[in-house]
Amino acid sequence: MTNWVYTFGGGKTEGRADLRDLLGGKGANLAEMASLGLPVPPGFTITTEVCAAYYENDRTYPEALAAEVEAGMDHIESVVGSRFGDPENPLLVSVRSGARASMPGMMDTVLNLGLNDETVEGMARKSGDERFALDSYRRFIQMYSDVVLSVDHGNFEDLLDVHKDRKGYTLDTDLGVGDWRQVVAAFKAKVGERLGSPFPQNVREQLWGAIGAVFQSWMNRRAITYRRLHGIPDDWGTAVNVQAMVFGNMGDDCATGVAFTRDPSTGEKRLYGEYLVNAQGEDVVAGIRTPQHLTIAARDANGSRLPAMEETMPEVFARLAEVFRKLEIHYRDMQDIEFTVQRNKLWMLQTRSGKRTARAALKIAVDMADEGLIAPREVLARIDSASLDQLLHPTLAADAERDVLARGLPASPGAASGAVVFTSDDAERLAAEGDKVILARTETSPEDIHGMHAAQGILTSRGGMTSHAAVVARGMGRPCVSGAGALHIDEAGQRLTVGNRTVSRGDILTIDGSTGEIMAGEVEMVQPELSGDFARVMGWADEVRRLEVRTNAETPVDARTAREFGAEGIGLCRTEHMFFDADRIVAVREMIVADDEEGRRTALDKILPMQRDDFAEIFRIMAGLPVTIRLLDPPLHEFLPHTDEEIGEVAAAAGVDPAVLRLRVNQLRESNPMLGHRGCRLGITYPEIYEIQARAIFEAALDAGAALGATVRPEIMLPLIATRGEFDMLRARVDRVADGLAAERGERPAYLVGTMIELPRAALRAGEIAEGAEFFSFGTNDLTQTTFGISRDDAAGFLDDYIRHGILAGDPFVSLDVDGVGELVRIAAERGRESRPDLKLGICGEHGGDPASVAFCHRIGLDYVSCSPYRVPVARLAAAQAALEDD
Amino acid sequence: MTNWVYTFGGGKTEGRADLRDLLGGKGANLAEMASLGLPVPPGFTITTEVCAAYYENDRTYPEALAAEVEAGMDHIESVVGSRFGDPENPLLVSVRSGARASMPGMMDTVLNLGLNDETVEGMARKSGDERFALDSYRRFIQMYSDVVLSVDHGNFEDLLDVHKDRKGYTLDTDLGVGDWRQVVAAFKAKVGERLGSPFPQNVREQLWGAIGAVFQSWMNRRAITYRRLHGIPDDWGTAVNVQAMVFGNMGDDCATGVAFTRDPSTGEKRLYGEYLVNAQGEDVVAGIRTPQHLTIAARDANGSRLPAMEETMPEVFARLAEVFRKLEIHYRDMQDIEFTVQRNKLWMLQTRSGKRTARAALKIAVDMADEGLIAPREVLARIDSASLDQLLHPTLAADAERDVLARGLPASPGAASGAVVFTSDDAERLAAEGDKVILARTETSPEDIHGMHAAQGILTSRGGMTSHAAVVARGMGRPCVSGAGALHIDEAGQRLTVGNRTVSRGDILTIDGSTGEIMAGEVEMVQPELSGDFARVMGWADEVRRLEVRTNAETPVDARTAREFGAEGIGLCRTEHMFFDADRIVAVREMIVADDEEGRRTALDKILPMQRDDFAEIFRIMAGLPVTIRLLDPPLHEFLPHTDEEIGEVAAAAGVDPAVLRLRVNQLRESNPMLGHRGCRLGITYPEIYEIQARAIFEAALDAGAALGATVRPEIMLPLIATRGEFDMLRARVDRVADGLAAERGERPAYLVGTMIELPRAALRAGEIAEGAEFFSFGTNDLTQTTFGISRDDAAGFLDDYIRHGILAGDPFVSLDVDGVGELVRIAAERGRESRPDLKLGICGEHGGDPASVAFCHRIGLDYVSCSPYRVPVARLAAAQAALEDD
Repeated sequence: MTNWVYTFGGGKTEGRADLRDLLGGKGANLAEMASLGLPVPPGFTITTEVCAAYYENDRTYPEALAAEVEAGMDHIESVVGSRFGDPENPLLVSVRSGARASMPGMMDTVLNLGLNDETVEGMARKSGDERFALDSYRRFIQMYSDVVLSVDHGNFEDLLDVHKDRKGYTLDTDLGVGDWRQVVAAFKAKVGERLGSPFPQNVREQLWGAIGAVFQSWMNRRAITYRRLHGIPDDWGTAVNVQAMVFGNMGDDCATGVAFTRDPSTGEKRLYGEYLVNAQGEDVVAGIRTPQHLTIAARDANGSRLPAMEETMPEVFARLAEVFRKLEIHYRDMQDIEFTVQRNKLWMLQTRSGKRTARAALKIAVDMADEGLIAPREVLARIDSASLDQLLHPTLAADAERDVLARGLPASPGAASGAVVFTSDDAERLAAEGDKVILARTETSPEDIHGMHAAQGILTSRGGMTSHAAVVARGMGRPCVSGAGALHIDEAGQRLTVGNRTVSRGDILTIDGSTGEIMAGEVEMVQPELSGDFARVMGWADEVRRLEVRTNAETPVDARTAREFGAEGIGLCRTEHMFFDADRIVAVREMIVADDEEGRRTALDKILPMQRDDFAEIFRIMAGLPVTIRLLDPPLHEFLPHTDEEIGEVAAAAGVDPAVLRLRVNQLRESNPMLGHRGCRLGITYPEIYEIQARAIFEAALDAGAALGATVRPEIMLPLIATRGEFDMLRARVDRVADGLAAERGERPAYLVGTMIELPRAALRAGEIAEGAEFFSFGTNDLTQTTFGISRDDAAGFLDDYIRHGILAGDPFVSLDVDGVGELVRIAAERGRESRPDLKLGICGEHGGDPASVAFCHRIGLDYVSCSPYRVPVARLAAAQAALEDD
Repeated sequence: MTNWVYTFGGGKTEGRADLRDLLGGKGANLAEMASLGLPVPPGFTITTEVCAAYYENDRTYPEALAAEVEAGMDHIESVVGSRFGDPENPLLVSVRSGARASMPGMMDTVLNLGLNDETVEGMARKSGDERFALDSYRRFIQMYSDVVLSVDHGNFEDLLDVHKDRKGYTLDTDLGVGDWRQVVAAFKAKVGERLGSPFPQNVREQLWGAIGAVFQSWMNRRAITYRRLHGIPDDWGTAVNVQAMVFGNMGDDCATGVAFTRDPSTGEKRLYGEYLVNAQGEDVVAGIRTPQHLTIAARDANGSRLPAMEETMPEVFARLAEVFRKLEIHYRDMQDIEFTVQRNKLWMLQTRSGKRTARAALKIAVDMADEGLIAPREVLARIDSASLDQLLHPTLAADAERDVLARGLPASPGAASGAVVFTSDDAERLAAEGDKVILARTETSPEDIHGMHAAQGILTSRGGMTSHAAVVARGMGRPCVSGAGALHIDEAGQRLTVGNRTVSRGDILTIDGSTGEIMAGEVEMVQPELSGDFARVMGWADEVRRLEVRTNAETPVDARTAREFGAEGIGLCRTEHMFFDADRIVAVREMIVADDEEGRRTALDKILPMQRDDFAEIFRIMAGLPVTIRLLDPPLHEFLPHTDEEIGEVAAAAGVDPAVLRLRVNQLRESNPMLGHRGCRLGITYPEIYEIQARAIFEAALDAGAALGATVRPEIMLPLIATRGEFDMLRARVDRVADGLAAERGERPAYLVGTMIELPRAALRAGEIAEGAEFFSFGTNDLTQTTFGISRDDAAGFLDDYIRHGILAGDPFVSLDVDGVGELVRIAAERGRESRPDLKLGICGEHGGDPASVAFCHRIGLDYVSCSPYRVPVARLAAAQAALEDD
């Protein structure tokens, strides 16, 4: 026989914490606390199964429910020693929702239930406080009418205001017993007027009305919306908790409060919370009175003059501290609790795992491991790997004042302040003079790389979480707020406007890339702390994980940062980013616009020594760790000169007519550059480009190898391969360069040649491509673009709608689409390994730093993930968590 | 033991036609003719295996070869009755190459071999013609020196010119015996001077020199290039044919000629060929003398005054006609032959299957079936389906005079003449006045559709075989020459220039879309003939094929044309093309630039009745055949107004500020429109667009159904689906429109809803998509773009290099990439059918009209192919050929 009702408290507890699905979070934890012997007001929980049955059976209850609820009320009465509806010694109860997942404020609650015209007098006598009894009654009428009878609470607030006006009162506390009697009468009259029938005096009618209202609130509009947003199924249902009322507002020996067992913001092990003397729970939330600290230490630290609970109620405080200790030992986690003190007796009303900042999560987990509460492996599982990112960047001081101008997308975490500039050249110039700058652009392009590097942070008015600005900023570890549509950025006028405010070049702005906020002026910051707990957790993660973690880096700064963050090699060194430097872009442009091989070779000869130096420095920094270098990939027109000045400059360097050059520039434009003349297609049509790059890599590797006294074995990656023919032709050319060098220098460079798998065709033909390729690196950004047929740059126009409608669970450029793109990755891995069992497999798209995607890479047996430097710790932890899943 | 040499002729023939791989085409057919008892000068063939062995063994011959060649020479001597090198009765031979595949003119030949200072005198005596003998000798010295001794033939031509100058001669025939003696002496002296040794007098040395030269010519540069271009493997090798010389230049009872057994241009069954009296084979080719016709009928038809062979050599002619009859019966195909008449005796020197026009191929095959030579099924296999296209369009009269200005790519077959115009509006205007126009543009865009429709033909200076102009023109059946880079098209100046010639608006141009030629003025044309043989072949094809053939059509003209060509339904009706009409583009633009739903609905309400009429007319024309309608697909910005005038027009219609409109236009621009906000993404974000389209389709279907007295069941196709969620959401909306209409009209429209499979993800997730979709149509154009990551519009920059390097066998947008794109099609078909066994499967990309791709569709079990109207016959035949392959 199904049990519809579970009692708790008074030594007769039927539920427990692991019945959360049946009893909801609140009910299960109340039962658990009761079982632990903690002081919980007695009550019972009507299960979530009743909710499901209620909706399945046309909003009717199971037959047996009435009797079980009666038994539950008997249980409460017998424990409390008072009776529901008894005019002399009335029992009051609360009726609250409680779903499996927390849905704060979404559903309804009724307090003080059981009051009517008779019991209110009994309560007045019993408590010796007539005013308290009447206050409770009027609160009950208002809440019950609003929740159960659909008489809006505004009606009652108006009546109270009218009464106060008439009497010249300001505060509720100005009202005396007589006033409250009048108000109660007025409230009841209003209900009668609205409903055509009096306010229900039958307490059982009140009880069933409240239970029904809670079940119905499961299907109210805001609850449905909340569930949709958080992916909570409709059929879970809510439980209903009926519990004896306890009162924190019966005098100065009463109080109510909320607390965390540790500091949820820093993770420090100290009682953290607030209480109010002579108050009900709503009063704490309402914020009318200033809450007091629990401990003397907290009071002193915050400079408060109000006494701490440790002082005013030392015994209760000691009892509370003991309860906290028990709860932590029992739950093995930091708890968020609610309590009430009624006449110096402590009552526990709720406990649950407390929400905490990333910093606190880390400290609490590590401390608990040190305390022996949990094992180091459990520490790994408890930390949300995605949140680690927050720990690696400066953040805004929690209580700093902020003058928020607008809000954009939190595109790259961390906070930054600086003088705003509107061009990348300006950013570079000011930064060279030692200024901190924020680069503000409508959107960024590859030509802004130097400005983004020079800036402390980047701000754009267009583009999404995966726009150029966002992706590059994350890669560089620069804070970025993108797509701040409210800003009008006037690059020509060197200013931005938002509403009626104007920010001009040089004005100080602060951006918070973790929240998307854009603020005027400088805001106080907190610097990250990478040693201590952080380092220990990373160490534990490294012991557990199987996946190697590399980084995507092409600058010495990035390479060094990544090594500090624990990168075990470079998985993607993009050579094109090296081409945008101010001192070489002219030569690069000269190469591109050359219309014959000779012209290209002349320009390339200027680039060769610079490329060689780039690589040599990276090899030195990586000191023998693997370095995967991708040959030139992007559509050539990304490098093209645009302005007349740029065209003139390149024309002069190349010795051609600017008009001819302009023609050539136009020829190189493409309708869909993403699918155009780029990647290995450049290597096929302009062999000399890849030849020079290979030569630069080999020379640098031999030089660096000699300096390090060890072999440097670069991994040369051919991008955008679609066919085996492309790979074979280009590999042969690379080999020829190596042969030539061997003849010249008497030493043959050591190297691997592999490819990006970033086109569906390459994934499908991986078997034959692997016959020539020694490694595959999945370029899941482009693979997602081609598999979905979605341009990352243009997705903003519809991707939000897709996510809103639930067509996509999330942005597939952030977390890998396992079903579609993932199948291609799996196919390629299988087919590749079939023809070359020792094929090295990695991923180097943005997904390499996304925990869910890292888990997928682990499951399908890749060898490594590569991500931007600031994501390396995230990937290390995510890889460890994925490995733990195997056990 | 390997046989290196095969003899033929004189009753001792060892080879036969099916030993082509071993003996080469020429050798095999000489042997076959000899076996048939036809008059073939005796000879022998040195096999292709010798060539292979020669190159494998460092250019040395197999040991046994010398003896076998000697035996071969003995064979010739015994049959002819003269001896090689005999000063009294010398045997002369020819030494020719002959590979497995025809490689015309690529390798070397030596004639009259066996002449030296002694044998030339014997030959003079034996022939009674000293001049003939000396002429033969000087020809031999020149040819042998050039081919074998690397003394360029220019040396000898110079000497001859010097002699003629000195004597005041104009023609070779002015030279007498004495002259030729002097010339021969001079030739020999030149060889001696060049080589430091005399011209070889030893005939065996001559023979082996010539054999070696032929084998070596297999590896000359032009032969290697030819093989690369035609995909002929290097290791096939060539055979060498040594054959007794016969002479067509020993007097007026001698002749030489070439002939086809039927007319290779029309296919008519009549002897077709030319001969020259008293001439050698080279003289026919050299074109110095006018050749004569074989038959009196041909002579009369061509108005020639020179006598026909039928008149001058009636017995030989009768013998020749008999040989032709025998060859056709034997080979069961039209033959291309070479013959020589020596002193009234006919000698056959070559036979092979004759090249022919598409028209002739059709007629010959059908006639042969009627003659009982071949079965109707064989007719199907013999016609190159791709060539059928040529039969469906007007063509230039073969002998019409042409003033060729330039040559572009043969982008869409057929010829057209008209007044050249430079804008689509101008084309439409002039066409409306009854003029024929040729539209010339740098390149075309979707906004040119109306102009392309109005034009007779399209000419562009940019873009490849799969550019917008080419694809749309093929779809419309309009002749098109694209990418004519030599033309400078000055749209603003309303003229085009090529070299130093200028063509202005209104000047007449003719283009030939089958050859790419662009000609000044009007050129005479021949109209296509679709009944008769063509209809019979199509009938046979329809009996055999399993694949249904539909068409891609959206205009009434196209729908009607396609039905005439045998289309069994519409597989792709693109609704966007209907939007470009001048009288509705403003409303369409108004819809696009509207920034809210209401604005879009207002504009869409203007479009609804037009769309309904479009569909109703198409349903009427298709009379119950299936019609698949694709909802709006292209990136919205394709419809955007560009010029100030257009923006003003739309702003006025929509009642908005032109400046606001311009901003919105800029917002809608995309970096990669192919991967942007298009296809079903439009339907998701702007539901009202698809709702209106569905409504127009349903209303038209109900109306047309009522008129036809039958149910019209449109197939609604959702484009660019990547996920099941998109499909389900859009299908639900379509169903809702149908429900609404059922309520309004009391009749629910009948319809199917399916999707294009044109993204890799859709192919992979076909199983779940098919749970909701009733049909799949493979959009292989886009699927090729995304699978390869190649934009069709931008591929011109590298695709040629890819094909040249052999990385791709051909353009994957023309013939489906079976290995890559094909695997996705196969996966989707399998997974789709697994979840819905009666899923209807078709293809509607450009590939639907490509024979190889049609064969692939047949093999993997699709239900239909859909192609542009003019490709329907091609697809019907290709489908039949694919079905024949199954047997």
